[in-house]
Amino acid sequence: MRPSGRELSEMRSVSIETGFTKHAEGSALIKVGDTHVLCTATIEDRVPPFIKGSGLGWVTAEYGMLPRATNTRMRREAASGKQGGRTVEIQRLIGRSLRAGVDRVALGERQITVDCDVLQADGGTRCAAITGGWVALRLAVNKLMKAGDVITDPLISPVAAISCGIYAGQPVLDLDYPEDSDAGVDGNFIMTGDKQLIEVQMSAEGATFSRDQMNALMDLAEKGVGELVALQQGATA
Amino acid sequence: MRPSGRELSEMRSVSIETGFTKHAEGSALIKVGDTHVLCTATIEDRVPPFIKGSGLGWVTAEYGMLPRATNTRMRREAASGKQGGRTVEIQRLIGRSLRAGVDRVALGERQITVDCDVLQADGGTRCAAITGGWVALRLAVNKLMKAGDVITDPLISPVAAISCGIYAGQPVLDLDYPEDSDAGVDGNFIMTGDKQLIEVQMSAEGATFSRDQMNALMDLAEKGVGELVALQQGATA
Amino acid sequence: MRPSGRELSEMRSVSIETGFTKHAEGSALIKVGDTHVLCTATIEDRVPPFIKGSGLGWVTAEYGMLPRATNTRMRREAASGKQGGRTVEIQRLIGRSLRAGVDRVALGERQITVDCDVLQADGGTRCAAITGGWVALRLAVNKLMKAGDVITDPLISPVAAISCGIYAGQPVLDLDYPEDSDAGVDGNFIMTGDKQLIEVQMSAEGATFSRDQMNALMDLAEKGVGELVALQQGATA
Amino acid sequence: MRPSGRELSEMRSVSIETGFTKHAEGSALIKVGDTHVLCTATIEDRVPPFIKGSGLGWVTAEYGMLPRATNTRMRREAASGKQGGRTVEIQRLIGRSLRAGVDRVALGERQITVDCDVLQADGGTRCAAITGGWVALRLAVNKLMKAGDVITDPLISPVAAISCGIYAGQPVLDLDYPEDSDAGVDGNFIMTGDKQLIEVQMSAEGATFSRDQMNALMDLAEKGVGELVALQQGATA
Amino acid sequence: MRPSGRELSEMRSVSIETGFTKHAEGSALIKVGDTHVLCTATIEDRVPPFIKGSGLGWVTAEYGMLPRATNTRMRREAASGKQGGRTVEIQRLIGRSLRAGVDRVALGERQITVDCDVLQADGGTRCAAITGGWVALRLAVNKLMKAGDVITDPLISPVAAISCGIYAGQPVLDLDYPEDSDAGVDGNFIMTGDKQLIEVQMSAEGATFSRDQMNALMDLAEKGVGELVALQQGATA
Amino acid sequence: MRPSGRELSEMRSVSIETGFTKHAEGSALIKVGDTHVLCTATIEDRVPPFIKGSGLGWVTAEYGMLPRATNTRMRREAASGKQGGRTVEIQRLIGRSLRAGVDRVALGERQITVDCDVLQADGGTRCAAITGGWVALRLAVNKLMKAGDVITDPLISPVAAISCGIYAGQPVLDLDYPEDSDAGVDGNFIMTGDKQLIEVQMSAEGATFSRDQMNALMDLAEKGVGELVALQQGATA
Repeated sequence: MRPSGRELSEMRSVSIETGFTKHAEGSALIKVGDTHVLCTATIEDRVPPFIKGSGLGWVTAEYGMLPRATNTRMRREAASGKQGGRTVEIQRLIGRSLRAGVDRVALGERQITVDCDVLQADGGTRCAAITGGWVALRLAVNKLMKAGDVITDPLISPVAAISCGIYAGQPVLDLDYPEDSDAGVDGNFIMTGDKQLIEVQMSAEGATFSRDQMNALMDLAEKGVGELVALQQGATA
Repeated sequence: MRPSGRELSEMRSVSIETGFTKHAEGSALIKVGDTHVLCTATIEDRVPPFIKGSGLGWVTAEYGMLPRATNTRMRREAASGKQGGRTVEIQRLIGRSLRAGVDRVALGERQITVDCDVLQADGGTRCAAITGGWVALRLAVNKLMKAGDVITDPLISPVAAISCGIYAGQPVLDLDYPEDSDAGVDGNFIMTGDKQLIEVQMSAEGATFSRDQMNALMDLAEKGVGELVALQQGATA
Repeated sequence: MRPSGRELSEMRSVSIETGFTKHAEGSALIKVGDTHVLCTATIEDRVPPFIKGSGLGWVTAEYGMLPRATNTRMRREAASGKQGGRTVEIQRLIGRSLRAGVDRVALGERQITVDCDVLQADGGTRCAAITGGWVALRLAVNKLMKAGDVITDPLISPVAAISCGIYAGQPVLDLDYPEDSDAGVDGNFIMTGDKQLIEVQMSAEGATFSRDQMNALMDLAEKGVGELVALQQGATA
Repeated sequence: MRPSGRELSEMRSVSIETGFTKHAEGSALIKVGDTHVLCTATIEDRVPPFIKGSGLGWVTAEYGMLPRATNTRMRREAASGKQGGRTVEIQRLIGRSLRAGVDRVALGERQITVDCDVLQADGGTRCAAITGGWVALRLAVNKLMKAGDVITDPLISPVAAISCGIYAGQPVLDLDYPEDSDAGVDGNFIMTGDKQLIEVQMSAEGATFSRDQMNALMDLAEKGVGELVALQQGATA
Repeated sequence: MRPSGRELSEMRSVSIETGFTKHAEGSALIKVGDTHVLCTATIEDRVPPFIKGSGLGWVTAEYGMLPRATNTRMRREAASGKQGGRTVEIQRLIGRSLRAGVDRVALGERQITVDCDVLQADGGTRCAAITGGWVALRLAVNKLMKAGDVITDPLISPVAAISCGIYAGQPVLDLDYPEDSDAGVDGNFIMTGDKQLIEVQMSAEGATFSRDQMNALMDLAEKGVGELVALQQGATA
Repeated sequence: MRPSGRELSEMRSVSIETGFTKHAEGSALIKVGDTHVLCTATIEDRVPPFIKGSGLGWVTAEYGMLPRATNTRMRREAASGKQGGRTVEIQRLIGRSLRAGVDRVALGERQITVDCDVLQADGGTRCAAITGGWVALRLAVNKLMKAGDVITDPLISPVAAISCGIYAGQPVLDLDYPEDSDAGVDGNFIMTGDKQLIEVQMSAEGATFSRDQMNALMDLAEKGVGELVALQQGATA
């Protein structure tokens, strides 16, 4: 029934390649099916003004998409002179999600910026960015710990994200682009390794959904996050 | 236990004054406690390029906040030269939520823009904007129907929104600003009159939450939306 | 002869409601007929760089208009990415006018920002903003004096503003929108309580005017300002 | 008494050199003492959208200042990414003033843009721009008439502008920069050749003025405009 | 003598991987040592306004760099709201260079946009972008020809680019970042497959160079371009 | 054969008028045929952040063009909200070229900004800007030396620039606008007084060129620069 022939609860194949670029303190190229996101983590000693002197660290994220990551070319945001609303929303979500897995006291007064740049898009880019972004963050923190700059591990728990939606009346896991375009309801679920919730976003466009449907999507999401966390751990072991 | 002395499941007092401004096709000043939002609906014959000629209508929203709506003065977005990320996120949410209650075929090829401007803020402005915005939209559509420009009512169902969160370990309904600043988890719940879900956004900052807690917040939200819809219907009767 | 049926020298009815919003140090909603402007005054300890360390205070103003304050919806300046020429001109005028009534030594090194936001427009918004803005400023200064932060009253004199113009060949007081659209000559007159001039702006579009006509407008303006100052004093007594 | 040694009612020496640049349909370099403004008039067949199809013409103006026209270098507006409030105000004034001398029916559906660029500034740049701008406009219109594109002269009357102010307690004509910096009250007076008023702007900063003082400034302005109009006519004869 | 141990006339190792992304009509990931640039070519039927209706085609380019492509993180241009001067210069150069190899009549009235995004930078990104961009362009044109949309091959000749410079007093081929930072003179040489020149840019910062030195750099460049063209032809065979 | 009737190796007539404006520390109006550029040099004690405390000086440049410097009016960059790509490229070139003639140690920790504003354009504006800009720089440095602020002359050598190109198949010196529009190849050559090269930019649009042609252009350029340097020295003697 799904365009890709996948089972309702079947994720696309996922790979995570670490060290894809050499300059960043942590980097990973995550591929969720045909969605490819390059994630890099940059450590800086400065923190944003609102926490200066607090002793707390900060984790933030930026998101971008290459103009031809998509089926038709999109205008480059740098050329149009601003980041679109979608970009802003997504990068705020990524930052908030990653921070939920971070002990900011243990991190100390430094900032880690996670850049997530979509090289190729086929649905679910924000979830891939979070899952891959956590890997880049993990690698950067490992470097801090190895250097003795950080003593207690500030990463409390892995953080991963997956989308689910109602496609052709059925709850399905990990929407690809053809499904996403057609689904009346879709959601993004961000969780820790032990399935605690960090962020739940469910949204209907031109439709509504019931609490039962919501629970069915939650069940699928828990399954998917479990699989993703295992892959994250494999990649950073 | 709550700073305001309210019960855990008690909303702030809500009033909706219609016709607050004279030019708009529909207008309402909604007050949810000390949060005051002026909502106006504007009907235009043109639609966005991507639906031109489709026969479908469009409902969109813009959100703003007066510089001194808040406790300390915020910089005017027009002066800083762009809408902040928070503004963009909120107005996309309002538009998406209202559209979920609209039959775009029945509306016909016209656009209704709902402007939500916060005159005074004390938490929950986006929810107040959606609830008040639906009233402005209802009034504008009534005008279209009275004029015979629209025959079938394009408003399928009322749309209302309420925030809930976990404050001091307890699930509470309708966070005001002091609670919102302190809550580790908060959510916005947008529903139709018959409790179908349109959008659910739950978000933890520096914390996580369980599915049980999520369900407790959902229960509160259903209660709150019921009360709001009754007030909307009173105001537009 | 006037569309509203008013006498040539008759102002619209004016009301001033103080304390319309709770956060600002001073606030007033002024209604001049159907022109409604919300004015708030914000006190800050910092001053602009060019007077830092001078011991002098500063009063500045910003002006905005809600998108549907007018008969047809105007694009939100925050969305178009800049304040239009008209906005910039008006807010510079408001700031300059209010400063003319302020003893900047007595104010001490602090800044008061007066925000004037038009909720509903029907001509004469800049004059209403100045008149209402002075009330907000008065209330904020009262708070400073009550707290003992300022000893000598820095407000030398009330400041009020009124428009006059030549409509259908006749000098008229307080143009509303239908008159303003038709008048070949219109002017804004800003004065102190004892009729000293602060700013006079007379402007013809597609016409010219004589010194005699100019004097007739000045006479009307003096009458109007007298009435406005009485109302300001009533509101802040 | 004046820093320059001029009489109270004495203008700076003024010269107008036409044809300073070769591409524009009309051009003039006006020098009012050390204030030098290059004015060019450009004729285009298109008009702004709001008068398309009306058969009416349009005259508009833009104003700029070279970065080192002033005593200390100012940031280039193109580099800072926007025209400042002062620039916007001035160019709106120039356009409005010139239009007051134009019969837009006789001009026909075309636009003339008058660019006024300050090469060197020493006070009174906006007045010099209007006076010189009218010369450029006159020359461009002459070209249209010579070519037979316009039959009836659309320039009803010359337009000229002069500043006056109260300096050291005395009304003085044509403020230069040292006077302008010190004057508590200054005004710009734009008139036709027969002393009809087009625009009067009088403004006090940190002071006020009486109607008697206003009248004294008006008298000086009438004298100044008379002299400027004679020079304009000499230059375009 | 070179930091990398290369001979004076030795290029870094170069690889070109075609089809790196699936959506673009042509794509190539070019690696010149540690400089990695993803190039995609997009075919669109529209052309820029200035050639509409001319029957001629257009080739243009855009250039970007991921924030952490470099040793320290650079601010994202989309976030700072504009493309920097360096970016603008480079993308104009790429477009101009590629167009020199294109028969715009044979291409027909369509536009090909070549996006060059630097995933990792180690000097020479603009040259890598041109060399890789030509490969993406070649692949996109092949697709047009295969589909019969274009009959005569519009690509007259391959286009490739290489940098040379004077490092430690010696002319060297293909500067990497450590060399580039130190070189007083560097140049970019863009040529066709038969060594005709398209663009030569030689530039000294804090130094000068003689015609003899210029000729030595030209000799190196011819050698380098020869090698690059062979690799291009291998990749697109 | 040339539209102007000039010999292939004949420059346009060149004049340099120093002291054209009174405020700048150095100023020159250079006329190369009908190309007129006003160059001013501004000395400031501050330097850019990246050399603060280094003891080194900095020379930078900005470039602008009046809207009607050209045959048809161009949009003012301040109005369009950014400097175009061409402007940015040119001003970077001017700054880089002038710096090549400066001993930044001798200059000391101060910045000189050279503004080059085109009053009238007829081809070759960037070269005229460099040649005239050097004169303004020379005059400003003379002032520093006269005042004893700088002891050793920081200007190592004059810097001048000329364009050459291939027009109608022939190498020609100093392209004017009609030639520039038609030339398939054109170049800008920036040299010191003793013909050392600072920058060479040769560029083909829709054509290519051989090394022999490149050498012919170089020969012409050396001749032209010789003549320009003589004129610079005359103007600053």
